[in-house]
Amino acid sequence: MHVEQQQNLNRLQELLARGNGELAAFLRELHPADLAELVEELPEVHRVQVFRHLGATQAALVLGELDPETQAALVQALGARRARDILEEMGADDAADLLAELGPEEAGRLLGEMKAEDAAEVRELLHYRPDTAGGLMTKEFVAVHAEMTAQEAIDHLRQVAPEAETIYYVYVVDRSDHLVGVLSLRDLIVARPDQLVMEIMRRRVVSVRYDTDQEEVARVIAKYDLLAVPVVDHENRLLGVVTVDDAIDVLEEETTEDALRMSAITPDEESADPRAGVWALVRPRLPWLVALLFLEMLAGKVIEFFQGGFDPATLGLLAVFIPVMAGEAGNGATQALAVVVRGLATGDIHPREVLRVVWREFRVGLVAGAIAGALLFAVASLWHRNILLGLVAGLALAVNLPVAKTLGALFPVLLHRLGIDPAVASGPFITTLTDVTAMLTYFGIAAFVLLHL
Amino acid sequence: MHVEQQQNLNRLQELLARGNGELAAFLRELHPADLAELVEELPEVHRVQVFRHLGATQAALVLGELDPETQAALVQALGARRARDILEEMGADDAADLLAELGPEEAGRLLGEMKAEDAAEVRELLHYRPDTAGGLMTKEFVAVHAEMTAQEAIDHLRQVAPEAETIYYVYVVDRSDHLVGVLSLRDLIVARPDQLVMEIMRRRVVSVRYDTDQEEVARVIAKYDLLAVPVVDHENRLLGVVTVDDAIDVLEEETTEDALRMSAITPDEESADPRAGVWALVRPRLPWLVALLFLEMLAGKVIEFFQGGFDPATLGLLAVFIPVMAGEAGNGATQALAVVVRGLATGDIHPREVLRVVWREFRVGLVAGAIAGALLFAVASLWHRNILLGLVAGLALAVNLPVAKTLGALFPVLLHRLGIDPAVASGPFITTLTDVTAMLTYFGIAAFVLLHL
Repeated sequence: MHVEQQQNLNRLQELLARGNGELAAFLRELHPADLAELVEELPEVHRVQVFRHLGATQAALVLGELDPETQAALVQALGARRARDILEEMGADDAADLLAELGPEEAGRLLGEMKAEDAAEVRELLHYRPDTAGGLMTKEFVAVHAEMTAQEAIDHLRQVAPEAETIYYVYVVDRSDHLVGVLSLRDLIVARPDQLVMEIMRRRVVSVRYDTDQEEVARVIAKYDLLAVPVVDHENRLLGVVTVDDAIDVLEEETTEDALRMSAITPDEESADPRAGVWALVRPRLPWLVALLFLEMLAGKVIEFFQGGFDPATLGLLAVFIPVMAGEAGNGATQALAVVVRGLATGDIHPREVLRVVWREFRVGLVAGAIAGALLFAVASLWHRNILLGLVAGLALAVNLPVAKTLGALFPVLLHRLGIDPAVASGPFITTLTDVTAMLTYFGIAAFVLLHL
Repeated sequence: MHVEQQQNLNRLQELLARGNGELAAFLRELHPADLAELVEELPEVHRVQVFRHLGATQAALVLGELDPETQAALVQALGARRARDILEEMGADDAADLLAELGPEEAGRLLGEMKAEDAAEVRELLHYRPDTAGGLMTKEFVAVHAEMTAQEAIDHLRQVAPEAETIYYVYVVDRSDHLVGVLSLRDLIVARPDQLVMEIMRRRVVSVRYDTDQEEVARVIAKYDLLAVPVVDHENRLLGVVTVDDAIDVLEEETTEDALRMSAITPDEESADPRAGVWALVRPRLPWLVALLFLEMLAGKVIEFFQGGFDPATLGLLAVFIPVMAGEAGNGATQALAVVVRGLATGDIHPREVLRVVWREFRVGLVAGAIAGALLFAVASLWHRNILLGLVAGLALAVNLPVAKTLGALFPVLLHRLGIDPAVASGPFITTLTDVTAMLTYFGIAAFVLLHL
């Protein structure tokens, strides 16, 4: 939090404690995004107090910036009438997200209180899955007909601008609401007033379907540098638009989800919330810890299998290098995994070239393994004054790294081929898997070298 | 790549092979972002062929979508005159990025060829560090004076709109170019034509300084849902604007950098490029692999220190569970690390509450450790028909997980306090560190239990 915001917070807390009339004036001066940041810092009772002092419009803007659980708690605390006033001021898309959080019964009651027109829009949006284009879109866009003139379109825009969420793209529809073109406000501004919309509109419109996954929607907006993308049904009828600010939120959300998945946490509403209860944090992690526990026991099984073949003194020496073998395999695999998962996520790696990428990682492992292996050979030989042990450790590491890097690169590629998000190829899963292969190569090489030399 | 793009690629390759006149017509129909995607798939000689068939305007748009190295290679292959024509059509910000990639000598030569006015803008932008607001901004914005009427402002806008990169915000400056307000195009459209700009402008403008880090710039745009943010000098004079599409690119770039850092790869231009040469991929990884090798040897030192105290049979049994101890500590720590690093990156974790977050992770570790430890106790006791071994393993895991989770949460918090990006708290570093603590607790507990019971 910035210094200025920290000062705002102190001032806000002071005004809340005194409970005097300056509070409303102070709140009016704050940007909704800044105020939302401050509200998150306050206890529930103070949050409600703040919202009682806000106008419905500002309250709607601030509420839209808070996370869904906080929204729901506030709306319940504010009472039905006040909640209805705020809901009517919110964008229909934000209102739908909030009502979805409240559950069907309370949502139905609030919808019943709202103006019929507003309620109908929100009801329609509630039908779409929240993580699709339909769930993200707003109905508050501007559409015109192709036969209008530029001046007529601007006049229409003037009327609807205060209601619309984005006016920088004007969509052109035919009489049955099919999307036939798009104009930017820039096109309208530079056009001659009597030019027809159909003469200046662009006919190739980038659009998404209502059931397109939200990440794909965000990627389309990012790729084509759009301020908004229109959402159509299966017959190309215009249903709504998704704006670039929602796209940014989706990209951030997906980044967090990928970061959690890659760290062996199943993402849910609370798994990334460090203020959630302890059990809410344990639940999405424990299944992975238990599953990986059994996989690690497999690595133990490998040690058990081989250890009968060594005399106790040798086994003791070998045991000292188990962490090096397992650790470096995991580190090498994690590096390859990160490059491949990010490459697939950003589209930098094209599906056609994945095998070339895996092959390159294998060669990277060979080079890194040769260097790190030589180093380990030198250190281990000197440390224990035992060249044979150094040879085993160095050789095992040199074999281990290419194997680990190949696995780290191959696994996300396989998932991608199977249509599964490569981010579930969690680092912990890969490092655990490479522990098994590391023990196999290490003790295998030890058995071979020590029993044959 | 989508099916449609795959078809486009096939068609493009066919036309390139035949070399006939249809190529130019086919290229004209493609969106610059789509064409850039196709160009990346082509060999160098075909890339140049494509650019010879594009108009300068489309060539500039396509070039702007390519990565800097590809841009530089193409510009060099196209020759100075053609390169100059394209550079003049590019946004000054994109042109500056490209010239920075070419190196001072060639950049100077091309700037000499360009129109003096265009060259001056590009030269100015070349002075700013590329990863700051100054390096990201464009000079092609719209500014008006506060004494203009709404109609005069719209007329001015009409004239400059074809040149400007964003016209949706109109910035208001005084006679010395100080930023005094902002209008959205929406405000202008709904205002009465004779209203003065100073009456309708907003006086509180969110702005950034030319030397603000690019990630901070992107976060400001995301937080306030802006389409662009103005960049000012230390005296609040308006220098340029950064647009939302650049903010999205920055967020993606920072996500990739964080993902690499967290996987023990030092990010550089080629470290995330799976098509880079083997050595270019080895270089940013090897220092970490070597450093962590020595840290892993410390874990080995711990084993060596304790092993004299056990008889060979016991040591053999204990060795079997080394991967479980080291692996589960790493997995648990990685989970905590991910939640805290993401929380700090998105601002979900406020600096004031970091210690509460670490404390919560400790308790999460206690719960997860109790459950996983009980499970391991049961499995290990049954597997080896040795309750004492089960007790050591289960107890060690129960102690290990809270220690590991605390370290995983504490480390990024410490870095954050020191003003270092918490993403350098790489997963591999933490898993290696917890290997050391895991060996300490495991063999420590084993020594205590087995020697005292």
